[in-house]
Amino acid sequence: MTLSVGVIGTGMIGRDHIRRLTQVLSGVKIVAATDIDRGRAEAAVPDGAEVFDTPRALIQSDKVQAIVICSWGPAHEEQLLACIAAGKPVFCEKPMVTSEAAALRVIEAEIASGRRLVQVGFMRRFDADYRRLKAVINGGTLGAPLMYHSVHRNASVPAGLYTSEMPLNDTLVHDADISRWLLSDEITGVEVRLPRRSRQNEELRDPHLVLLHMGSGAIVDVEISVNIAYGYDIRGEVSCELGVAALPNRPATVISDAHGIRQAIPEDWRERFIEAYDQEFREWIAAAAAGTATGPSAWDGYAATLTADAALRAVASGGLERISMIEKPRLYEIPAVLAAEQFGAPFTRAGS
Amino acid sequence: MTLSVGVIGTGMIGRDHIRRLTQVLSGVKIVAATDIDRGRAEAAVPDGAEVFDTPRALIQSDKVQAIVICSWGPAHEEQLLACIAAGKPVFCEKPMVTSEAAALRVIEAEIASGRRLVQVGFMRRFDADYRRLKAVINGGTLGAPLMYHSVHRNASVPAGLYTSEMPLNDTLVHDADISRWLLSDEITGVEVRLPRRSRQNEELRDPHLVLLHMGSGAIVDVEISVNIAYGYDIRGEVSCELGVAALPNRPATVISDAHGIRQAIPEDWRERFIEAYDQEFREWIAAAAAGTATGPSAWDGYAATLTADAALRAVASGGLERISMIEKPRLYEIPAVLAAEQFGAPFTRAGS
Amino acid sequence: MTLSVGVIGTGMIGRDHIRRLTQVLSGVKIVAATDIDRGRAEAAVPDGAEVFDTPRALIQSDKVQAIVICSWGPAHEEQLLACIAAGKPVFCEKPMVTSEAAALRVIEAEIASGRRLVQVGFMRRFDADYRRLKAVINGGTLGAPLMYHSVHRNASVPAGLYTSEMPLNDTLVHDADISRWLLSDEITGVEVRLPRRSRQNEELRDPHLVLLHMGSGAIVDVEISVNIAYGYDIRGEVSCELGVAALPNRPATVISDAHGIRQAIPEDWRERFIEAYDQEFREWIAAAAAGTATGPSAWDGYAATLTADAALRAVASGGLERISMIEKPRLYEIPAVLAAEQFGAPFTRAGS
Amino acid sequence: MTLSVGVIGTGMIGRDHIRRLTQVLSGVKIVAATDIDRGRAEAAVPDGAEVFDTPRALIQSDKVQAIVICSWGPAHEEQLLACIAAGKPVFCEKPMVTSEAAALRVIEAEIASGRRLVQVGFMRRFDADYRRLKAVINGGTLGAPLMYHSVHRNASVPAGLYTSEMPLNDTLVHDADISRWLLSDEITGVEVRLPRRSRQNEELRDPHLVLLHMGSGAIVDVEISVNIAYGYDIRGEVSCELGVAALPNRPATVISDAHGIRQAIPEDWRERFIEAYDQEFREWIAAAAAGTATGPSAWDGYAATLTADAALRAVASGGLERISMIEKPRLYEIPAVLAAEQFGAPFTRAGS
Repeated sequence: MTLSVGVIGTGMIGRDHIRRLTQVLSGVKIVAATDIDRGRAEAAVPDGAEVFDTPRALIQSDKVQAIVICSWGPAHEEQLLACIAAGKPVFCEKPMVTSEAAALRVIEAEIASGRRLVQVGFMRRFDADYRRLKAVINGGTLGAPLMYHSVHRNASVPAGLYTSEMPLNDTLVHDADISRWLLSDEITGVEVRLPRRSRQNEELRDPHLVLLHMGSGAIVDVEISVNIAYGYDIRGEVSCELGVAALPNRPATVISDAHGIRQAIPEDWRERFIEAYDQEFREWIAAAAAGTATGPSAWDGYAATLTADAALRAVASGGLERISMIEKPRLYEIPAVLAAEQFGAPFTRAGS
Repeated sequence: MTLSVGVIGTGMIGRDHIRRLTQVLSGVKIVAATDIDRGRAEAAVPDGAEVFDTPRALIQSDKVQAIVICSWGPAHEEQLLACIAAGKPVFCEKPMVTSEAAALRVIEAEIASGRRLVQVGFMRRFDADYRRLKAVINGGTLGAPLMYHSVHRNASVPAGLYTSEMPLNDTLVHDADISRWLLSDEITGVEVRLPRRSRQNEELRDPHLVLLHMGSGAIVDVEISVNIAYGYDIRGEVSCELGVAALPNRPATVISDAHGIRQAIPEDWRERFIEAYDQEFREWIAAAAAGTATGPSAWDGYAATLTADAALRAVASGGLERISMIEKPRLYEIPAVLAAEQFGAPFTRAGS
Repeated sequence: MTLSVGVIGTGMIGRDHIRRLTQVLSGVKIVAATDIDRGRAEAAVPDGAEVFDTPRALIQSDKVQAIVICSWGPAHEEQLLACIAAGKPVFCEKPMVTSEAAALRVIEAEIASGRRLVQVGFMRRFDADYRRLKAVINGGTLGAPLMYHSVHRNASVPAGLYTSEMPLNDTLVHDADISRWLLSDEITGVEVRLPRRSRQNEELRDPHLVLLHMGSGAIVDVEISVNIAYGYDIRGEVSCELGVAALPNRPATVISDAHGIRQAIPEDWRERFIEAYDQEFREWIAAAAAGTATGPSAWDGYAATLTADAALRAVASGGLERISMIEKPRLYEIPAVLAAEQFGAPFTRAGS
Repeated sequence: MTLSVGVIGTGMIGRDHIRRLTQVLSGVKIVAATDIDRGRAEAAVPDGAEVFDTPRALIQSDKVQAIVICSWGPAHEEQLLACIAAGKPVFCEKPMVTSEAAALRVIEAEIASGRRLVQVGFMRRFDADYRRLKAVINGGTLGAPLMYHSVHRNASVPAGLYTSEMPLNDTLVHDADISRWLLSDEITGVEVRLPRRSRQNEELRDPHLVLLHMGSGAIVDVEISVNIAYGYDIRGEVSCELGVAALPNRPATVISDAHGIRQAIPEDWRERFIEAYDQEFREWIAAAAAGTATGPSAWDGYAATLTADAALRAVASGGLERISMIEKPRLYEIPAVLAAEQFGAPFTRAGS
């Protein structure tokens, strides 16, 4: 079976997903697109795909079995609700929505529909390095996780376009989501500290040190630097009761020359997470073809919204900003058996 | 466009390629198969594919645009010649053929056909680590390559099925092919030394130390251990005039526990090269859809045959066994421009 | 010239320093010792050394040119003041003293004496890995340091003897001192967060996450785990404006076996810092032979006392506890030229 | 007790050993020296030491308890025999002697003296990395060693002074000695292959690939490059039946910057082996003070001479040059108990 997909929003990321769904992955075809700039949508789609005037028309078309939302954040709520109303699986780029109330409306609608339909674009969960790290922690041989050190470094961000709120509501959300996922936990409070400023970008508040307090009592400290010049460097280390597990260096030729013994560092997120994006859609296609969704859910989008809001409040207050979530609906519980299948056993070859 | 593929031989590797072409990759569909055990072919193909009685009938069918050969080695020559006669692109698992004379007949037929149609299954060339390594060497910043240390370790090989010739005619050929490719060179002579035997498998001659003498004067030393128990460990280090470039550790969670600070090692070639196999077929599909072939050629299959033959002679003689190839036909020259595009620039971000 | 040394306190650490000064290092001899248990002192010293009844008598003896203090903390102040009064160089194990007021009295006396006489036992500053790290930062090629992540993990601590205050007033002081030294900065405030507790030692508050606010605005986050079972693991990573510099893995055989590719981790501080202790005394001997002291000073002992006090207050308050130091006396400024000589140029071989 | 040492030869290396014995190590003093240039000896020794006119006079002086020989190779035999005749422990820089016959005369004299008196300057055996590697192999958990890959790279060698024989009779001897020591084995044959030449030094034959055939059947392949520009890089990897053990990277700050993630490489042997030289003499002093010698013996000097001779013959012949040693005298057997004490247990913390 081939899944027929419609794309809302054909900007840079929308076009990249069209490329991925057309040229890289199997079992899927692009049958429709829409954009506020109709010409841009027409240029982006493969031959034979229909360009719709509105997201609503695209969502409701019989041709379209599943939807990919790449429009801007404020438009997401309405589009998600329309997809849910139509009973169609939908992949939504982050941010899922831009307010707590909107997140709750999406959750409520999805629960009312009786099954998961929404997957939110947290691609790190599909990265092989993060998956292996989670498998080690879940395996339990290291005991309970107590601390997680998450490092998020960008070589640079676009001057002017990237504001001082964005390290918290655009960048931090990746670390927050992966922390929740790695530790199988929820964030209950956020603190933000502002270290000495980098002179790399005088107009930006950078770097940030963020503390995430988890429900279990574990603490996550996140280092965010968005103008560190040397590369895109994503690191993570989980300290447990009996040991530590960390993301590895990225594979890169080991060169010994006048600069020492060295390995290249990814330039940007495209280079670092290209396989994760592919895998994210591979799994979305499989679930959507079965009429549902797996992967990061509306619940995760809700948590991300709350975390970003709390982080921004914490900058202003200087103190601990607490997060309070509604009780987790049953729809968003992962059955334990399924979780085990998903990550396999961690490093169990070493005897015993 | 979707490439219609027929598969000859539906044993373990044939079925794995059918899975890959059906479930993983895009732009391709399995339309036909054949096997000496017709029932096995019927069980292996997706719905709607036709099972043929003979390879010849499959190759000549109008339904089939391109062929994947996974039969046993002695059958390859006839099947390859039939594909070439039909003007259809063909992917052939190694060994391409089992004698020098057969290799030359394939080459002759392909030259007569006027274009490349044959791709041989040396999957390492599609591995991202090897590609980055080649890009560094080709970049030239380290000067000319003088030595290459290639390490090929298998955790174990099937007792009984794997004979003492196989480290040389089945295992070594991967190191030989990748040496030729990394160094852009040909093998002119082979020596084999037999170190102290491992007691892991008393009936097998293991390990081997092989020296490959290259046309440029560079020397490759290959360490082959096929029962080393701890994992499947593929290493490579190129010593150049001004520095050294090596394959990195495989990405794996960095665990600190009672066993030290450590990373898992792949268990077998499936785990190590799974992405390389996918990429190998991705590029084959693209070329076959254009009516031709890129990647490892009949010329490379010819070189592999000569190397394995020389290595077996070298065990017997204890001396240097020379290899003499025919002059390289123009068909097998890679245009320099294309080669540069294929591998990109090596680690040039570090300024000047 | 051979420096004649008297040792106050011949417990475990005192005896280890006697071994070091007698058997490992040159230019020094043990001529005197004293201990509250006279028999222990007699058993500890080499032939020909005199055992004194009191620290005061030892300090004032004409035989003794320099003193090593290994008594318990509360006795240090009086002994240090006696050494300064006698004009004799003195090495004092940490803690230098146990209160801010005592630290200021030592500083005042030393200033009055006109030259540095006191070296405090912060051995990390003599470790080759930390010295290279400081040289890189001082070299300036990475820009200003903005954050420092310091990890201090003990396999275990003695049950019963090690109290919940000790992670802060005994363990943290090493990270605090090395942070001041690496960043050439002072600590102006301390916060402590208590993550989920480890079940390894139910009676101990463990682990701790400590934030040190530096005068420059840089923030240091310190992870302290004192029962992590797998080894003694000391890590440090400095995030600067243009790059990052970190302590390396300890040298250890790279083993590939059924546990993966791995390196052993030190068991305890003796194994990790044995060369640093030797070097610490090598430099102390050289300075003492010249009638003065270099290395960690009474000023550094004062800073350590203030930091430990603030950290304990921060546990109680849950907030930021500020540190206010007196103006730094000229005696404790390191001339820039001397500092450059001490650490050399960082990694300047790479052209440019 | 303080060992009174006389030094023969006060060139660069002799002066460096005088510095080491005077300023770094304990339990030793320089009491005498001699040199063909008397003024050079006078300038090199500390106050109070006597300068002798001849090596013989120095060796026979009652002041001198032990001798360090740093003269040129052809003078060593006579000086060693005089030390043995005087019953005095002697440290001799490599080469011990310059012919097989001379080596046998030294061995014969030492045996006649009834105890070991000679230590030869193979400093690698005192390097902590090599010692840990040997402990792992001796531990036996990896099974028998089958192959050893030894890499010896110099950044450059002095033009004019370093001839094409020296990679084999000056450089290779270190790899040969450490191979014998690591594998507890003897070399029975040598082959040399000459790869493509480096253009870094047009007048020198460089690099070399050497195969050492060991008595057990194990094969050592040695890569020697003496003009590789980027640094002094010493590598070693032992392939055993059940796993692999290798020398680690040298400790060096891990820098992440525009050149990648990287560590510096030592510039030369002084930087790489400075602690090994110190340890070599520390152990020599301890043994000499007891009137004997441990460490590399006259037997090891004999083996080195035979290996260098065979390697030079192998270049000329292109074939396998066999080595035949006399039966090993009992004097040179290391008691197994002592050997175990010396290297300790390998990485046994990981349970089971």
